[in-house]
Amino acid sequence: MARLRLTIAYVGTAYCGWQIQTNAYRRPQPTIQEELERIVEKVLGTQVRVHGSGRTDSGVHAEGQVAHFDVPEDKADMDWQRTFNAMLPDDIAVLDVARAADDFHARISATGKIYTYSLWLSRRYTPPRLFPYVWTTGPLDVAAMDAAATHLLGTHDFASFQNVGTELESTVRTLRRISRTPETDVPATEAPLCLDWQFEADGFLKQMVRNLMGTLVACGLGKLSPDAVPAILEACDRSKAPSTAPAQGLSMTRVLYD
Amino acid sequence: MARLRLTIAYVGTAYCGWQIQTNAYRRPQPTIQEELERIVEKVLGTQVRVHGSGRTDSGVHAEGQVAHFDVPEDKADMDWQRTFNAMLPDDIAVLDVARAADDFHARISATGKIYTYSLWLSRRYTPPRLFPYVWTTGPLDVAAMDAAATHLLGTHDFASFQNVGTELESTVRTLRRISRTPETDVPATEAPLCLDWQFEADGFLKQMVRNLMGTLVACGLGKLSPDAVPAILEACDRSKAPSTAPAQGLSMTRVLYD
Repeated sequence: MARLRLTIAYVGTAYCGWQIQTNAYRRPQPTIQEELERIVEKVLGTQVRVHGSGRTDSGVHAEGQVAHFDVPEDKADMDWQRTFNAMLPDDIAVLDVARAADDFHARISATGKIYTYSLWLSRRYTPPRLFPYVWTTGPLDVAAMDAAATHLLGTHDFASFQNVGTELESTVRTLRRISRTPETDVPATEAPLCLDWQFEADGFLKQMVRNLMGTLVACGLGKLSPDAVPAILEACDRSKAPSTAPAQGLSMTRVLYD
Repeated sequence: MARLRLTIAYVGTAYCGWQIQTNAYRRPQPTIQEELERIVEKVLGTQVRVHGSGRTDSGVHAEGQVAHFDVPEDKADMDWQRTFNAMLPDDIAVLDVARAADDFHARISATGKIYTYSLWLSRRYTPPRLFPYVWTTGPLDVAAMDAAATHLLGTHDFASFQNVGTELESTVRTLRRISRTPETDVPATEAPLCLDWQFEADGFLKQMVRNLMGTLVACGLGKLSPDAVPAILEACDRSKAPSTAPAQGLSMTRVLYD
């Protein structure tokens, strides 16, 4: 067998997230994983699991999701990228296919992940092309958000920023970087501006980026003091943190491997 | 009465172009103009024409379409931008509303227009976020396109680049600028690259930008020699020029006024 590694981009708007919903008896939307597996099954004539680096929620996008799957040796050198992209809908694209080591695992081998969350700072209008990819918050006190972000950086128990639904051994993660573009001062006005926040960690808990963003935006809106963030972390209680940011502003940007 | 000037952006994918289709007895999609007029009528309680700077075809986008309409003096200072954007679908946004001179006319006062046409140069994949906004051509000989563009610049009878359906006094237009981004040399390889072409003229004939782009791409694909372009212009015959580029790559970027 040969192991292949895929890099995938998608607009998540029309999908029920990455992962196949086995128990959903009434499922309005397909998932990214099932779109890929459907094609692999059509080509190989047998069901093959496509393992993702991690789930993305319903409505979340990706610029660089990574997945792997195994194929018989004589199918390793066929043009898998062309095959996928010819059969995938327009809102999913395989950016790259590469042969991987036999012990490569899209999820287990990952040493970190980068997500981007995009905010639109004017309530006067949201540009139609950006609309599916941003959370329109209105003006924000970005300096307060920066101050809150410094409290979140580093190794913490992020239980206050994890939504229920997954059993994990540990909720400790290392948040290596929170950065934003543009990096310059942003006045808290009704400016037509897209503010992209990047989060890099060794791993993320369920809806963690959206929960971190919800807390940063609460600080930016003056609803929460940045000084309150350490106590929220220490509480290890989801109910102490502000609400979850909407899915549509989030994109999985890159999965890191050694 | 007060005259108001609108600047409008839209994703044209779901619309049957700008102009209201009065004679379409079987119309699958709405138009931008009717979406705007519907709101004005709801606010004023009477039908008011919203005049655009020009039509855009079905499926064509806009970043800076301009329109005007008249309202009673006591309605001139209400927050029209908020009103429009609260009632418009997400794929249309009013970017600006300003009081205009009584003799301002979105179409007649325009001294020029800028359109952008976007090409995606790799057939390996088209990024899902770009897909609705580009024509995926594959690799192009961009130097040949540049050479063809120089023949098109200036004042010509562009009848060879006009699709039927409009009666005009003259088909002479002045094409002031054709430029592209990136401006640097582009090797004719399967590179993942978006190449934006801008066209500025005093005015454009029906589907003229898409016809110009179709001819430039034909040169880029090696199907037409740039040296053949002057004869196509001189022929004043649509059938002598290559076929029309698809609508989805085109966007009305800006309307120019003195």
